[in-house]
This record gives sequence, structure tokens and C-alpha cells, in this order.
Amino acid sequence: MKQSDTDSGLYEEGVSHIIADVTLGDRNADIFITRDGRIGAVGVNIRRDYAGEADFIIDGSGRIAIPGCTNTHTHAAMTLLRGYADDMHLQEWLSEKIWPLEAHLTGEDVYWGTRLACLEMIRSGTVAFNDMYFFMEDAARAVDEAGLKAQFAYGFIDLFDEEKRETEIKATETLVSAVKRMDNPRIRAAVGPHAIYTVSKEGLEWCAAYSEEQNIGIHIHLSETEKEVNDCVEQTGMRPAALLDSCGCLTPRTVAAHCCWLERAECDLLGKRGVFVSHNPASNMKLAVNRAMPYHWLHAAGASVTLGTDGCASNNNLDIFEEMKFAALLQKFFWNSDTLLPATEALLMATENGARALGFGTGRIEAGAPADLVLLDQRSPCMVPRHHTVSNIVYACAGSAVRTVFCQGRVLMNEGFIPGEDAILTGAEKAASSLVLRANGA
Amino acid sequence: MKQSDTDSGLYEEGVSHIIADVTLGDRNADIFITRDGRIGAVGVNIRRDYAGEADFIIDGSGRIAIPGCTNTHTHAAMTLLRGYADDMHLQEWLSEKIWPLEAHLTGEDVYWGTRLACLEMIRSGTVAFNDMYFFMEDAARAVDEAGLKAQFAYGFIDLFDEEKRETEIKATETLVSAVKRMDNPRIRAAVGPHAIYTVSKEGLEWCAAYSEEQNIGIHIHLSETEKEVNDCVEQTGMRPAALLDSCGCLTPRTVAAHCCWLERAECDLLGKRGVFVSHNPASNMKLAVNRAMPYHWLHAAGASVTLGTDGCASNNNLDIFEEMKFAALLQKFFWNSDTLLPATEALLMATENGARALGFGTGRIEAGAPADLVLLDQRSPCMVPRHHTVSNIVYACAGSAVRTVFCQGRVLMNEGFIPGEDAILTGAEKAASSLVLRANGA
Repeated sequence: MKQSDTDSGLYEEGVSHIIADVTLGDRNADIFITRDGRIGAVGVNIRRDYAGEADFIIDGSGRIAIPGCTNTHTHAAMTLLRGYADDMHLQEWLSEKIWPLEAHLTGEDVYWGTRLACLEMIRSGTVAFNDMYFFMEDAARAVDEAGLKAQFAYGFIDLFDEEKRETEIKATETLVSAVKRMDNPRIRAAVGPHAIYTVSKEGLEWCAAYSEEQNIGIHIHLSETEKEVNDCVEQTGMRPAALLDSCGCLTPRTVAAHCCWLERAECDLLGKRGVFVSHNPASNMKLAVNRAMPYHWLHAAGASVTLGTDGCASNNNLDIFEEMKFAALLQKFFWNSDTLLPATEALLMATENGARALGFGTGRIEAGAPADLVLLDQRSPCMVPRHHTVSNIVYACAGSAVRTVFCQGRVLMNEGFIPGEDAILTGAEKAASSLVLRANGA
Repeated sequence: MKQSDTDSGLYEEGVSHIIADVTLGDRNADIFITRDGRIGAVGVNIRRDYAGEADFIIDGSGRIAIPGCTNTHTHAAMTLLRGYADDMHLQEWLSEKIWPLEAHLTGEDVYWGTRLACLEMIRSGTVAFNDMYFFMEDAARAVDEAGLKAQFAYGFIDLFDEEKRETEIKATETLVSAVKRMDNPRIRAAVGPHAIYTVSKEGLEWCAAYSEEQNIGIHIHLSETEKEVNDCVEQTGMRPAALLDSCGCLTPRTVAAHCCWLERAECDLLGKRGVFVSHNPASNMKLAVNRAMPYHWLHAAGASVTLGTDGCASNNNLDIFEEMKFAALLQKFFWNSDTLLPATEALLMATENGARALGFGTGRIEAGAPADLVLLDQRSPCMVPRHHTVSNIVYACAGSAVRTVFCQGRVLMNEGFIPGEDAILTGAEKAASSLVLRANGA
């Protein structure tokens, strides 16, 4: 049994750990993590029982353990566009800045952008995310190497054109096959019909059928803007949720992002169908969508609400702790209720609800569950004093309170150290510079 | 000339520094800091010219220099109440939780709460703040020791009672005398008429006259809630800004916090009087005040808008970087404009406007200015890639990107290390626990 955390073996897959004397809820406990990446046992002073089986002991004193967090809506590789264009009108922003840059994206760019995203997520306590973008095989390679979990969807956009639809179907099938070949329990495929205003009814129906046939997730943008809702009603006579339902897209495998402009009956429908909703408060505020997701109606309808950061072009970071605070504060502010979305529910959105949305376990720290864990610093000023740990997590701390991260039993960060961080930052910087040069014709 | 940053002399007052090869705007430069705490010179490769005069050289490579930030509205010692009560209705929150605890506060509690606040502010790049609370002499002692700058106001609350008014006048005069005796350029006094609903017209008039006589600031809450405005109109026939103006409280020495419910004419009046406004977006959202400060009207009226976190009971941290993001996003969201309050203006609010509001210099990095400086980590993931430094600062980074802080030429944090941090955390934890025990009658 090695006790040194400088041993490089600490960061490898397939080794076992004891987290000793960590704060878990209102007590101190030990957590035993098995070589196959599960939580073997949790309890007071169980470290003696498992000492013989543990390759490493992590000192958990002064640390608070919470489940690893899940980011249920992002476009991870857009880290490369962080700060490239802000404070512009939406249409100019897209047509003059974002789309011209994206037209020059390569698989290698997406690899480096996703590596940077993984680095940022590890640093801020996220172990799993729901990604929708292009060159997803390269994104999956990045996540495989980084040690995180992710569900990947190719952004299916047929623009109501039959020929384009065939291309998008092929691209989706190719990604799903590639992910299957990886045979990695940390990496899942989904279908990604982008939104009702970019995908035809036939496209949506194909996505629904294919997702059912393959038993994989659906990842879609829903009712982000008022225009999207008004256009839909005008063109189809239905509101967006009803249209998606008529195409078979509302399922317990579906994650619907944004959902700002849902009315009450749509919330009931989402609850009935078991859809997971991804709340993206920072993005919605930055892009001035003019309405906040109706959390209270979704909650009452029994829909599971989760949290997403959206991509870095519209946030501009991937810190799920910051997103918890934005969610809890935006709900109170917009719906004019000082008790709406309390801290305990915000933490559940980022942990249990998120993990279940992507099919990555229960998002709880319990024996048998995947060992997805985050250790927070009790001595970070945001955690002092500690009248209420969860209030501190949601309202006071940012992701910088995270010290150590386990994903599927593997240590991805230990006391702030992530192996290979420097090379990732350099690779991403180079990819971003080169992308801008290419887009500007240099 | 010593180059080791482990030398304890590095953290002392009265030593001189060169910050070598730091990123400043779009170039790399050296900054010379004099023994009397001013920026002596800024320029490319000037380190050779000042090498003989510098006691320490700080390696600025890989660091970005920005002016130190100013927090223009807080109740610093409320760090002790962080997380003590959240997600409650405002009236219950105050009467059942906050006020009973505050009734047991001692000067020693305020000292430790303020030390913790200073620690948190240093960690997140704030060098100066505007404080309103009780036992302000103890708060001033804490700031003196911590090395920050602050303006202190005793929270003047006469509740429309003449006898109580006399007590509040005495308390204000006592604080102002005590601060004068300290004779510390980092520490200033102000008068703190709490708000129009807690202070009589006579009280407001006394505050205005005393502030003019002493040539000190005025720190007041203005139009935080709709009820405050409606009650004022009903009782006086005037809106709150007009009432304050009739009492002489609107001056270029005044900082008015919140200002959520101002109408356009009030914004014009504040601009005309040269009042500084403190925007407190996180607190306003958390407490569900139901309207955002009208930044566009204030900006158009020429009023200087600054940033404040409010106290930790209603935020629950003192991270001015987070507040910049909340401000830029809340303005866009509430006023439905994706271009309102761009990143560059948010940074000015936290730096130049804030410093001018408290009379602590220009808030710029320029020769002759007080050496109030913050060095950010270029290799923090939030700063990669660096298409636009200010966008990254406002939208992507939290205070954790801060590595080194100078205030009045003194190093308060160097590469994340703050001397004495552990003792401060322990002292604040003990004070908070003891306060809760006393309040609960144990």
C-alpha cells in the first residue's frame, strides 16, 4: 500500500483507493473505491477493513465529499471561441463571428477544444457532460484520454432539405458506430436533432426512431427564444413541446436544453414523458432570451431538472458551481420568489438529476455506485464559517473550492494537480490561434 | 536587491518592488513601485533603470496586471453569517434569523468577520471596500492589519425617534473621530444613513450637513425594493431620490447602493448631483427585488456606476469578479438587450469608478497613482485562449484567477500565499460558532 500522492500510479486506471476521514454530510467517514471504479463501501472508520485492498490512501481530512457533477448541455470544443465575440447582437454575432470561425473547424481543433473543456470541468468538479457539436469522434477521443464521462451527439441540422437530411443521418449513424466500437462505459452516443427550427418533421421522426432502435439518448434545444415558439405556432399550429411529442422526441432518454419559453401545459407534458430538462441560466441571461425556465412548473410536473453551462461562446466558462448559483438566483429573481429553487435542490440538479439524465448512475455517494466524487476544501474562505454546507457550495463557492476529483474510480485531479495540464493549455492555445488565422484568410 | 519571494520582508510595508515583464493591455511592461506605495514608473524594459532602488523583484511573466478592484457596498463582518439562513421569505429571514444573531454581535466578532472578509477580498482581487455595519472601530482595526483600504460608516438608524437619533449622531461622531485618530490614508470614515425608511428627515439632514462639514462620504441604501418607493411616495409625495435631494444627501461624495427601482428622472438627478451608484446584482437577484438597476439610464445621465457584493448573508461571497459577471448578464437579461453593459464597462465599474467613488485614487495603473494592483494567471483555463482579455476577466474568470495583490504598494498576496491566513480562518470560525451559541441561549 503506497501512501504518497506524488506516485504517478495514483492517477492510473485500475487502482484502488481509500479516502480517509472525509466529511460526508454531517459526519466523517471513509470511502473505499474498488479497482473497477465503483464505491466499494462507505462508513465510519472502515479504512482498517479495506487497508489490505487499497493501493492508495487519500487523506480526506479537511475535505468535504460530494458526488461528481454533471453538465447536461454544452458544446465543449467551443472553449476555443471563449471571448472571441461578446456583447454583440445575436444575429451579427452568429453570422459575422461564430459561423465563419466554425466553418474552418477541423477534427484536431475539436480534439484540443474538448481537452481544454475537460481540464476546466475537472478543475471545477464536473465528471460527466452532454455534448453536441461536430467532429464528435475527435471529442470522444479527447474525453477518453481525459478520463471523464460524456454523451456525444452530432448536431443534426437538415434545414428542411431532403438531401441534407441524408447527410445528417449518415453522420449520426457514423458517430453511433464509432462510439460503439470504443466500447468504453464512460462514453455514450446520442442523437442530436438541433432544434425544431433547424430540423424537419421527417428529421425529428428519424431521430426519435433511431434513438429508440439504438436505445440511446436524444439531445435537443427547446424553446430557447420567443421567436422560436411564435414561428412554430404560426407554422404548425402547435407549440414546440407538442410538435416534438408528435414526432416521438419526448422520452425518458431525452435531454431538452434551455426550455425558457415553456408554458405550463408543456411542463406537464415533459413531466409525463419523463424528459430531463437542462437549465442554462448564464447563457440565457447573456443572450438576453427574456424569460427564465419555469422551474416551479417543471418541478410540480415531476420533470427532472438538471444544469448545463451551454458552450463557452455564450457563458463563457464551464463552471457548474457558478451555474448552480446563477440558477438559484435567476429563478428567485425572475419568478419573484425568495424561496424558489433552494440550495439543496440546486445541488441535486447538478448531481443526481444530471447523472440520471445521461444514464451514468445515481449521482450519489453510496456503495455500488460508480466512484464519481469531488472533494472540496473546508478551509477555502467560501466554506468558512460552515453553518450550512450546501448553502456554502451553491451560494458562496465557485469551482475553485474543488481540490480532488475521481471519475469512475480514477483520480483525475489530486489537490489541484492534473497530470499533463500544461501541454493541454498549450495545444488549445495553438489550435485557437491557428483557427482564427485560417478564418481570417491568413 | 532580494529576488526570493519566500523572504518575509516581501510582505512588509515600506519596501519597493519591480514587477518585471507583466502583461499590461496589449504589451509587456515593467512596473516600479516606490517605498511610499505609489506606482513610480510603468514602461517597457524599465527594470534596469530602477534595479538599484528595488528591494524585491516580482516575476510578472505569465501574469496579467489590472488595477485592484473596489467593492462599493458591503457589510463586511456579515461573513460570520454566511449560509446561516438562506431560501427564506425576507421578513422571516430578518426577524427570525439575521436580527436575533446580530443582537449578540460584539466588537470582537466584527473584528474577526472583517478579517475573514479581507482575506476573501484579497484572494479575489479587491483592494478597497465601502463598509456599513456596527462596531466599526473594530472593523477599521481589522482592515488596518489586513493592509486593505476601506471607507467605514456606522449604520445610522433612528427609526424616526428623536432620542434614538441623538444616540446615532453620537455613534457617528465617535467613529469619525476614531478614524481621524488612526491617521491612516488607507482608512476613511463616512456617514451611513441606512435608508429613507429607517432614518427620519431630520436624521438625513444631519447626516448631509455633518458629511459636508467633515468632508467625508455618505453611504446609503436607495430604492432597493418597490415597497420602499411606494411607501415614500405615499408618505411624502416624493420619490426616494427627490426626498434624499431635499435633505442634501445627493452629493459627489455619496454612494447610493442598489438603486433597483429608480425611474428615469431619478437617474438624471443622480447624474446631475455626481452621485456614485453601487450596483449589487447578486444580492438583488437572491432577495428577489423584482427589478434591475437601470444601468442604461444612469449611464446616459453621466452617473458613475460601481459594483458591490452586499453582505455575505445575501450573496453569499465577496468575489467582485463574480459580481462583474452577474452585472453584465443581469443587465442584458432584465433590460432585454444583448449589448448592454459590455465587459469593458463592467471592468471599469469594478476598478476606476469604484476607486473614485471612495476617493482612493484613479483606479488606473499609471505613474503617480497608488500602487493598487492585481496580477492574474494567464494559464488559468478561464484565460485560455486569450482572444479578448477583458471578456475573459468578466465572463470566464472568477476571483480564483487572482495570484498576486498589491495595495498601497504592499504585497498582500503573492502567488496565492497570504501570511497568517490559517489563524484568520480559525479566528472567524470560532467567532461564528460562539455567536450562534450565544444567540441560541447556550
